[in-house]
Amino acid sequence: MNRREFGKLTSTTALASLLSARGNAQTPASQDKAHQEHEAAMQSNANLTGGPKLTIAMLAYPGMFLHDLVGPLTMFESLMNRDIHLVWKTKDTVKAGSLVTITPTMTLKDCPDNLDVLFVPGGLPGTQHMMEDDEVLNFLAEKGKTAKYITSVCTGALILGAAGLLKGYKATSYWNTLETLKVFGAIPTEGRVVIDRNRMTGGGVTAGLDFGLALVAKLRNQTYAEAVQLYVEYNPQPPFNSGSPATANKQAKKFIDDMFTPAAKALHATALKVQARRG
Amino acid sequence: MNRREFGKLTSTTALASLLSARGNAQTPASQDKAHQEHEAAMQSNANLTGGPKLTIAMLAYPGMFLHDLVGPLTMFESLMNRDIHLVWKTKDTVKAGSLVTITPTMTLKDCPDNLDVLFVPGGLPGTQHMMEDDEVLNFLAEKGKTAKYITSVCTGALILGAAGLLKGYKATSYWNTLETLKVFGAIPTEGRVVIDRNRMTGGGVTAGLDFGLALVAKLRNQTYAEAVQLYVEYNPQPPFNSGSPATANKQAKKFIDDMFTPAAKALHATALKVQARRG
Repeated sequence: MNRREFGKLTSTTALASLLSARGNAQTPASQDKAHQEHEAAMQSNANLTGGPKLTIAMLAYPGMFLHDLVGPLTMFESLMNRDIHLVWKTKDTVKAGSLVTITPTMTLKDCPDNLDVLFVPGGLPGTQHMMEDDEVLNFLAEKGKTAKYITSVCTGALILGAAGLLKGYKATSYWNTLETLKVFGAIPTEGRVVIDRNRMTGGGVTAGLDFGLALVAKLRNQTYAEAVQLYVEYNPQPPFNSGSPATANKQAKKFIDDMFTPAAKALHATALKVQARRG
Repeated sequence: MNRREFGKLTSTTALASLLSARGNAQTPASQDKAHQEHEAAMQSNANLTGGPKLTIAMLAYPGMFLHDLVGPLTMFESLMNRDIHLVWKTKDTVKAGSLVTITPTMTLKDCPDNLDVLFVPGGLPGTQHMMEDDEVLNFLAEKGKTAKYITSVCTGALILGAAGLLKGYKATSYWNTLETLKVFGAIPTEGRVVIDRNRMTGGGVTAGLDFGLALVAKLRNQTYAEAVQLYVEYNPQPPFNSGSPATANKQAKKFIDDMFTPAAKALHATALKVQARRG
């Protein structure tokens, strides 16, 4: 790669990182022209590039469902002028699914107050453990006092509920755990994204994309969220129509029920126990 | 947690891991009943739980877009009786986006032949580096000789193209890089998922979910894919309609063009250079 090509590549890289983390991009002299063009473009889009600094904390725990975290993170990483913290008890890696480990970037102890977003993913078996983990529940209850948005995807809502953060609020969860929200005094509400005052909860797993985009619009503005939607080409076209219990192929539904009804029952039993102890 | 509750929890966990990795679940004596019930359910769903062992290799490289990998992985992890390898030159962690590192599970050197799926994610700045990396391109060309499905999401198609794997094939890529596919003799084709013989390419970033589900149906059957769709509640409801250049909010489109047209041009220039050298 010659010098000119390297300049071209790094300026491209700088542009890309500007979208995801404005202010971190390096602009050595060799990139002055690209930088100036970029700055001019940014000026002409001033209503999209502005906005106060945002601080987002995402609980990253062992046994969470990987996409529950990564869906919203995909949208949050597209915000400019933001800090995103993946918070856990330690900075030891946590396993999400069968292959991928996530490295937390901050401990619960170091997590600031006055968060713009407090986010909790779901997933088995982690949700069940988190619902019974007083250190985690106390952390969420404490940060929830000052967080601007208190949020979850999938069964993460059961963890928010166990922490006492959904009492009297409409909320959603993974489809076969919706009724369990009642145990915590929440109002189970069907919906891909359910917003009640400053609580925003998403449905199961992939709902994190719809949730993340809706939250980006709240944090900035709709046009910015629409730019993010184009950036990640979120123009979904599922090849089948089996993504909700109402529309699912009947044999597929029976199969998933056979697999996961016991898990849903176990989560419900845990919810009752936790609520009796802490509620 | 008492002994009975522990049994309940671990059997739940076993059920969950059975869906994601059949055969790995442990079944100690305390879980016999749950295990028997589960086995009975599996029998009644025999056409869904069967199928030959699948081997999937996903290239995991520095500077890939995290969701490009995680979208398809979310669907692939739901397959039973499969090995999924995250392959890279070394087992050192690779960064994907601003926060998350992925740990490869296998080196390129150890990756087997006769893969069921060879998969390449996209993303900046990694795609540009991979298009010029002979070690990676030679690896893909070699594994492509025996892979059952040769696949990509987003700008991963440009890497497949650079490796000579798309010549004469219809393919798609991230929307602003579609024309660059021509450089490699591919036939740029609009579509969320484009299938031509054993090549399956997905559009930008979030298209990985549609792609992954379509591929699961090919690898097993449509009913199984429909079960996976319900499992991950893939019933998308984007809050806005700005996910493709054709429907995007005009100001949002201009903003993204200002940001990423230079990157698309740089990828095109690299494609021309690579093709002149290797094509």
